[in-house]
Amino acid sequence: MAETMLAVVKPEPKPGAEVRDVAIPKIGLTDVLVKVKVASVCGTDLHIYNWDPWAQRRIHPPLIPGHEFCGVVAAVGGEVTSVKEGDFVSAEMHVACGKCLQCRTGEAHICQFVKIIGVDDNGAFAEYVRIPESNIWKLDPEIPQEYASILDPLGNAVHTVLAGEIAARTVAITGCGPIGLFAIAVARAVGATAVYAIETNQYRRKIAQQMKADYVLDPKSEDVRAFVMDHTGGLGVDVVLEMAGHPDAIRTAFNIVRRGGRISLLGLTSKPIALNFSEDIIFKGITIQGINGRRMYQTWYQMTALLKAGKLDLHPVITDRMSMKDFSKGMERLKTGEASKILLYPNGVK
Amino acid sequence: MAETMLAVVKPEPKPGAEVRDVAIPKIGLTDVLVKVKVASVCGTDLHIYNWDPWAQRRIHPPLIPGHEFCGVVAAVGGEVTSVKEGDFVSAEMHVACGKCLQCRTGEAHICQFVKIIGVDDNGAFAEYVRIPESNIWKLDPEIPQEYASILDPLGNAVHTVLAGEIAARTVAITGCGPIGLFAIAVARAVGATAVYAIETNQYRRKIAQQMKADYVLDPKSEDVRAFVMDHTGGLGVDVVLEMAGHPDAIRTAFNIVRRGGRISLLGLTSKPIALNFSEDIIFKGITIQGINGRRMYQTWYQMTALLKAGKLDLHPVITDRMSMKDFSKGMERLKTGEASKILLYPNGVK
Amino acid sequence: MAETMLAVVKPEPKPGAEVRDVAIPKIGLTDVLVKVKVASVCGTDLHIYNWDPWAQRRIHPPLIPGHEFCGVVAAVGGEVTSVKEGDFVSAEMHVACGKCLQCRTGEAHICQFVKIIGVDDNGAFAEYVRIPESNIWKLDPEIPQEYASILDPLGNAVHTVLAGEIAARTVAITGCGPIGLFAIAVARAVGATAVYAIETNQYRRKIAQQMKADYVLDPKSEDVRAFVMDHTGGLGVDVVLEMAGHPDAIRTAFNIVRRGGRISLLGLTSKPIALNFSEDIIFKGITIQGINGRRMYQTWYQMTALLKAGKLDLHPVITDRMSMKDFSKGMERLKTGEASKILLYPNGVK
Amino acid sequence: MAETMLAVVKPEPKPGAEVRDVAIPKIGLTDVLVKVKVASVCGTDLHIYNWDPWAQRRIHPPLIPGHEFCGVVAAVGGEVTSVKEGDFVSAEMHVACGKCLQCRTGEAHICQFVKIIGVDDNGAFAEYVRIPESNIWKLDPEIPQEYASILDPLGNAVHTVLAGEIAARTVAITGCGPIGLFAIAVARAVGATAVYAIETNQYRRKIAQQMKADYVLDPKSEDVRAFVMDHTGGLGVDVVLEMAGHPDAIRTAFNIVRRGGRISLLGLTSKPIALNFSEDIIFKGITIQGINGRRMYQTWYQMTALLKAGKLDLHPVITDRMSMKDFSKGMERLKTGEASKILLYPNGVK
Repeated sequence: MAETMLAVVKPEPKPGAEVRDVAIPKIGLTDVLVKVKVASVCGTDLHIYNWDPWAQRRIHPPLIPGHEFCGVVAAVGGEVTSVKEGDFVSAEMHVACGKCLQCRTGEAHICQFVKIIGVDDNGAFAEYVRIPESNIWKLDPEIPQEYASILDPLGNAVHTVLAGEIAARTVAITGCGPIGLFAIAVARAVGATAVYAIETNQYRRKIAQQMKADYVLDPKSEDVRAFVMDHTGGLGVDVVLEMAGHPDAIRTAFNIVRRGGRISLLGLTSKPIALNFSEDIIFKGITIQGINGRRMYQTWYQMTALLKAGKLDLHPVITDRMSMKDFSKGMERLKTGEASKILLYPNGVK
Repeated sequence: MAETMLAVVKPEPKPGAEVRDVAIPKIGLTDVLVKVKVASVCGTDLHIYNWDPWAQRRIHPPLIPGHEFCGVVAAVGGEVTSVKEGDFVSAEMHVACGKCLQCRTGEAHICQFVKIIGVDDNGAFAEYVRIPESNIWKLDPEIPQEYASILDPLGNAVHTVLAGEIAARTVAITGCGPIGLFAIAVARAVGATAVYAIETNQYRRKIAQQMKADYVLDPKSEDVRAFVMDHTGGLGVDVVLEMAGHPDAIRTAFNIVRRGGRISLLGLTSKPIALNFSEDIIFKGITIQGINGRRMYQTWYQMTALLKAGKLDLHPVITDRMSMKDFSKGMERLKTGEASKILLYPNGVK
Repeated sequence: MAETMLAVVKPEPKPGAEVRDVAIPKIGLTDVLVKVKVASVCGTDLHIYNWDPWAQRRIHPPLIPGHEFCGVVAAVGGEVTSVKEGDFVSAEMHVACGKCLQCRTGEAHICQFVKIIGVDDNGAFAEYVRIPESNIWKLDPEIPQEYASILDPLGNAVHTVLAGEIAARTVAITGCGPIGLFAIAVARAVGATAVYAIETNQYRRKIAQQMKADYVLDPKSEDVRAFVMDHTGGLGVDVVLEMAGHPDAIRTAFNIVRRGGRISLLGLTSKPIALNFSEDIIFKGITIQGINGRRMYQTWYQMTALLKAGKLDLHPVITDRMSMKDFSKGMERLKTGEASKILLYPNGVK
Repeated sequence: MAETMLAVVKPEPKPGAEVRDVAIPKIGLTDVLVKVKVASVCGTDLHIYNWDPWAQRRIHPPLIPGHEFCGVVAAVGGEVTSVKEGDFVSAEMHVACGKCLQCRTGEAHICQFVKIIGVDDNGAFAEYVRIPESNIWKLDPEIPQEYASILDPLGNAVHTVLAGEIAARTVAITGCGPIGLFAIAVARAVGATAVYAIETNQYRRKIAQQMKADYVLDPKSEDVRAFVMDHTGGLGVDVVLEMAGHPDAIRTAFNIVRRGGRISLLGLTSKPIALNFSEDIIFKGITIQGINGRRMYQTWYQMTALLKAGKLDLHPVITDRMSMKDFSKGMERLKTGEASKILLYPNGVK
């Protein structure tokens, strides 16, 4: 086996990234070395590339980014028992401490001491990535590699959709980035009876239609609240999945949820947002949930089962495929707002 | 308006029934008179027809049976506000007392003092039926009459399927009478990832296939436990919906449910059944639920929403359509085991 | 029986109130006339008295206010079956429509068309009050009249405390008005392992101590967050019951709740409050609930059971007892901030 | 440190046990060696001592039994980080595999591949016991050693009581062995409003009274169903905790639970028991749960919090204290039915 590999590297604390040769990671007794087949790009990777204020606080270069991928096990540490060389795998990249209250009570997704591979440690935009055995997710070879590379954001969608009752309910999704788009498919697959997709970007709206949202609304040109009320007999929707993180979208979420409904918040916000607690929350008797990561590993079982059963068609979300060497081109493409999910191939697009 | 109507009547405490003219029911201030468009036949009606021991204990002739139907409002009492003449409706036929603990805490489906229209009072196998306003369910005219006439058993299925988590889970249904068959469609619509239908009757198995169960098994010729274990990686299914009420089916239910799984019991049994509590329940940490009726009115909202969204194809279950005059022929047809849901038309099949 | 009775009346749209003779209410077939034994005063009554902006929008004089009381049945309408003359009763004063989605799915406490007796219709600050049978709550004569008169706010507390898991959990209560004080007793009775009462008013803090809060904190002189973190091993509390409605209290609630914790909001706010959604809600994975009224009638069963079992000592909250004639004195007393629950006796304090 | 220690040993496959010197266990990198302060005796230990059919199938001598204890950390493996020498600890003795579906979805208490220390591997009836770090539970030194030694059965009780709603509910406990007796205290601490303790053994009934059960009933001399119905207004109890495993007790459980109630089954049965599914489960709409072990580690947090808050007085259950050398005397004492919890001290009773 070679000692070096090609990787995307953030070499120093400033905008940009390089693609260059680096050492292949060494693995410990409980680690798994995975040869990356396909990786995919998250908005977080663009924050790191752009070196925005969040990245300046959180990232310590040099770093190999990338936290969405699938691959094949290349080597395992001496104590690893659950996978072997050649197995097809993906991984949960939130490495929970395993010892805090949250980890010991089934809530490892909000571990107090979580470390994220690809953010706090070297990630998957490389030919090889090192993953602790506890975080490896073994996959059925029947699952397409393209889908296997996007389980991290698909898991965000599954976690959000299934965080409360959804069957036979109406659902609005505010914000149609990749996770919002995945959520359309997931909500439909688990029995949502109407999905309202709300998004300002026309490219995303077009994909939302391909994902078979029942209604695709542009809040810039339509009165979303009036439309929703008109289509729900004046009730509002049962569930809102907030995936934009924008003040207008959050405002809309509270305006269209029905009395007794649920708002699940996933979209990260950069500024404080004002709520009228009495009118928006208390009199309506609603429930609001903060959603983070994926349930370990309930969410992984759920999404694997849905994928294997053929319940999810995610292809419209995958808009670009490119060689990992062209990482910077991918970043530029993402900035245009015309791309959704971009897949990277370490050894060239197949 | 005429003063008499055609009705199926159980005239005295013995087997059989008559179709004859009777007085149209008088309504009180809070009642609704419905002109029946389509009624459908339940196994309970056959018990009444056959005058079996259950019927002998429960039924007080003369009685008009029938508790599954749809129709059009013909007249309303002076205090009725939620429907008006001409509205398309069905009804919840369990009339709960409204005053017991269960009724006052959202569990009216297990009311201590429930009366069932068509069992304890005159029912829907007639040109007209009287329903208290509280129990009327107003329907969108877009819902087909055939479906509208079977909301009672469809509601049993919806209540059972949604009595616990179901999305992204594997489900076995033991017993494919009409409710079991409906449950196949409902489970699929709300995201079950595999449905195992288990049934000894070949006619029912054929319909189970038409309802798109993933696996249809005959326990007389197949080792159901071995099959399920083989197809679930040795785990067993997440959920069993028991709809047969037969000791063998119940035995199977406990044998194939996974550790931590759910068994929801709907099928009524006529004899005691022995369980090994330690092995069957305690070590496996399972949950068992008794399911009765339909949640008032959560289940009605759920099934209406699923029907309106076009999530349920129930046609394979409807095997026979006949004029209400031919009620006795319907009973004989049911006894053959070759019919599933039989629809009755008071004024002839349209 | 007399035709007139003494009552507190808001005669016209301006500050103040009168105590004067008015007609005893007439009852319909499904109504109950209750002779009031004890009524108690809510902050809402002070808003009405003061004729503040909320009252100006909501109240239509002339009105008899008062929505907390107990009494004895004086007469019943012809169709009433659940109580009879002489029965000891209180009542749920939120009269739900019974026909909306929320009412029909066990969520009548957030009915879309609720009317409140004592706000939208004549209430209980009178010798007699008219209540629909559906809203009457029959009481065991063993329950003390003083407690029976405060079931409305006690029910708010019970509803809030029991809106999520509470046993073996740490709880903070922000705001110690009567409902917050009751919540201390309820949380302790159902197994909260530490109760932090947070309140700026020294009179209320003293009562919080009498209610046996484990820790009583003054946010003006203490660093509440530091104190809570120090006493919870740096975690924060499992549950916050927000009962102040003040921006500072809400800020505190989000600062001290642990990852994965619950914030239940009851205290009404008059202005928008800004939240940092990412830090306050999403990364922490918390759940926020709006709490309104009392569950009909789950909450009533719960509080009755707790009272009968002797699990609640509420006496410290009752600070004043006076004749209903002295209503205006009660209002002035409330304004001082030195009174908590004030009881009114229509026929003089016994 | 010495190389040998005193231990209770089951030397070969036949009745009885020896107390003798054996080697102190060696620890691996992730193990903790605990010096036992107090151990306590479980019914399981008597099965092993008696060499009954269950023991003959499950136990592979030589074995040191004992799975309830507390002690002080004597040594830690090189990778252990959560405790250090001198820490006061107990342990969860169910060692879950960590890799099966149940383990990875928060249900490790029903792990498919669990091993129990003291049953499948050497246990705590010895001066030292080896525990994997993952299973160590660090204790506040304020918790009394006697209580710290009985966390395993107390945890069974906490898990059972808190497996469903309990606050403001009536509870019956069938069977007052140590776990049933603990359940009385736990149910009271978390807001049960009436506890019915049902037990045939007079010594246990006496302790049930000391534990402050509201009603203590002898099913041999009293009509338990009639008593419960009389005291619950004819409803039955909200919750039954079945802790006897005897057919009569299970029969009683189904007879006294109310419509919509919960039966949580913990008591192990040795023979099949017949149920009338229609009458006992389905029409009543009840929920039945199999309860196994303790939730890892939710239950441990809960019981620790309750103990630290002083919410549980467990002393009446501890009937005997003896030197570990007298183990066989303890077994004989247990056989009399006059002892409840027997504590063993490796170095003599302090």
